[in-house]
Amino acid sequence: MSNKVDSGKTYHHKCTGEALETADAHSAPKDITLFGSCFCPFVQRVWTALEFLGIDYKNYEVDPYKKPADLLEVSPKGLVPALRLESYNPPRAVNESTVILDFLEEYVHTAPHVGIYVNNKSGLASTTTGRSLLPPVSDPYARALIRLQADHVNRALIPAFYRYIQAQDEEKQIEGGRAYVEAINGLLKLFQRAQAESSSTCGLWHEEGSLSLADVMVAPWVFRSTNVLVHYRGFALPEGPQFRAYVARLVKHPAFKRTCSTEELYIDSYERYAHNRPNTSQVANAINAGTALP
Amino acid sequence: MSNKVDSGKTYHHKCTGEALETADAHSAPKDITLFGSCFCPFVQRVWTALEFLGIDYKNYEVDPYKKPADLLEVSPKGLVPALRLESYNPPRAVNESTVILDFLEEYVHTAPHVGIYVNNKSGLASTTTGRSLLPPVSDPYARALIRLQADHVNRALIPAFYRYIQAQDEEKQIEGGRAYVEAINGLLKLFQRAQAESSSTCGLWHEEGSLSLADVMVAPWVFRSTNVLVHYRGFALPEGPQFRAYVARLVKHPAFKRTCSTEELYIDSYERYAHNRPNTSQVANAINAGTALP
Repeated sequence: MSNKVDSGKTYHHKCTGEALETADAHSAPKDITLFGSCFCPFVQRVWTALEFLGIDYKNYEVDPYKKPADLLEVSPKGLVPALRLESYNPPRAVNESTVILDFLEEYVHTAPHVGIYVNNKSGLASTTTGRSLLPPVSDPYARALIRLQADHVNRALIPAFYRYIQAQDEEKQIEGGRAYVEAINGLLKLFQRAQAESSSTCGLWHEEGSLSLADVMVAPWVFRSTNVLVHYRGFALPEGPQFRAYVARLVKHPAFKRTCSTEELYIDSYERYAHNRPNTSQVANAINAGTALP
Repeated sequence: MSNKVDSGKTYHHKCTGEALETADAHSAPKDITLFGSCFCPFVQRVWTALEFLGIDYKNYEVDPYKKPADLLEVSPKGLVPALRLESYNPPRAVNESTVILDFLEEYVHTAPHVGIYVNNKSGLASTTTGRSLLPPVSDPYARALIRLQADHVNRALIPAFYRYIQAQDEEKQIEGGRAYVEAINGLLKLFQRAQAESSSTCGLWHEEGSLSLADVMVAPWVFRSTNVLVHYRGFALPEGPQFRAYVARLVKHPAFKRTCSTEELYIDSYERYAHNRPNTSQVANAINAGTALP
């Protein structure tokens, strides 16, 4: 266990490193505005998907703790991420990261103005680049296998991450670490099952695979397991060459890497969680209260 | 508040009423076997979708508390619902109700052997009957609006239902009832928003609407709010003619009604929850422990 003194650091307000370059390159108005915060893993999911799918967007950094009026207009709970769709008059909005990811996956297959895609008569497009977060619609079973992974990430792995980082006494930290590893192992079983039962190479679990919906959903927490959890909890990711190779492919994937700030930003921003400070976030409060994540 | 004495009744093992007729009519082997339990609302979602989408299936009643070996083969946690796909050799499986619903929605648009649907070259079919739980793929925004509703049902409304029915002392029951009504009102806001922002009539909120993914997801708990919660908690659904008309359309929808047993079955089966008996279910344990639903 590695317990640090609470130095009172708080979340950052601006990306650093490669993420800053990406944000700067996306500061002009576009059809889609991404309301995000540089430290937020739920935002990073959506940002990665936009980068991977090749959808143009404007990046708009907001402070979700101050809940500016334009954020509340697109996200009733004042949570990031949210998209504002500027091509409607008045503009419309989509919030909740999982809903946004489904939306983007469908948007890219249907929007005629997304240049890299070609429409066909059915209204459903084939992509010329093959970029999709799911196997083809002609293979619902292969898609279901990816969705089982995504469901496990949302309902088991992510709550386990927060219970672990927010645990204060040593016994609960040990228990939290074990439960988190168990959740990771549950995901690996689902990866192995998909590999055995489907010929699809959607998913970076495959050596030559492409980024999947489940990969995008889990990547921000896997990444924070390699820095935040190491720093505050002395965490070590499970062994095993296949898993370690997967993690390496995931955190080095160009679409994900382009959304990553330098490690210091995450270490600073998660000190609040590591010391379970009151009102750290709606997610932290839900974990403490034992209710569903917002 | 309406507190009854715990008479020791337990869950039923066989459908009654209209659900029994439907089960009896689906006892022969088919490409899809539905592993289900007559009292389970998560099963009822999937059963309703099968009926609505016109997908043929074999209904297979299992006791999820005894976890027979064939259930564990298709659902690692031994939870219902699960589908066994018999056309594969060896058979394959899909579990988790939300993943199954997405699978069925896609299956019906692609499976050439689902008689009522016609395939086109893209692999994505138009339905000849127009049966679909989501607006057309050409309208990702309308689909996102339905998914926002479904997300709210899963993450807010359902946990609130169980906290309410499992609450034992009066103060917690009052608080639980209020929180449940708040979750219902949150769903209504999302219905109203979809009506304002989309021309799609997917969803029974529309007077002439069709059954949506969100409708199917919420129906079993709305139904139990009209019998189980009335019986054990003296619950009254929120007033308002538009909401009451929605509830009436939902519980009378033929695809849903065909999966409904008589009220006695639900009253009996939920006595365990209403008295928060130990080990009532994995769902009940998760609510008591303050962890994510299984």
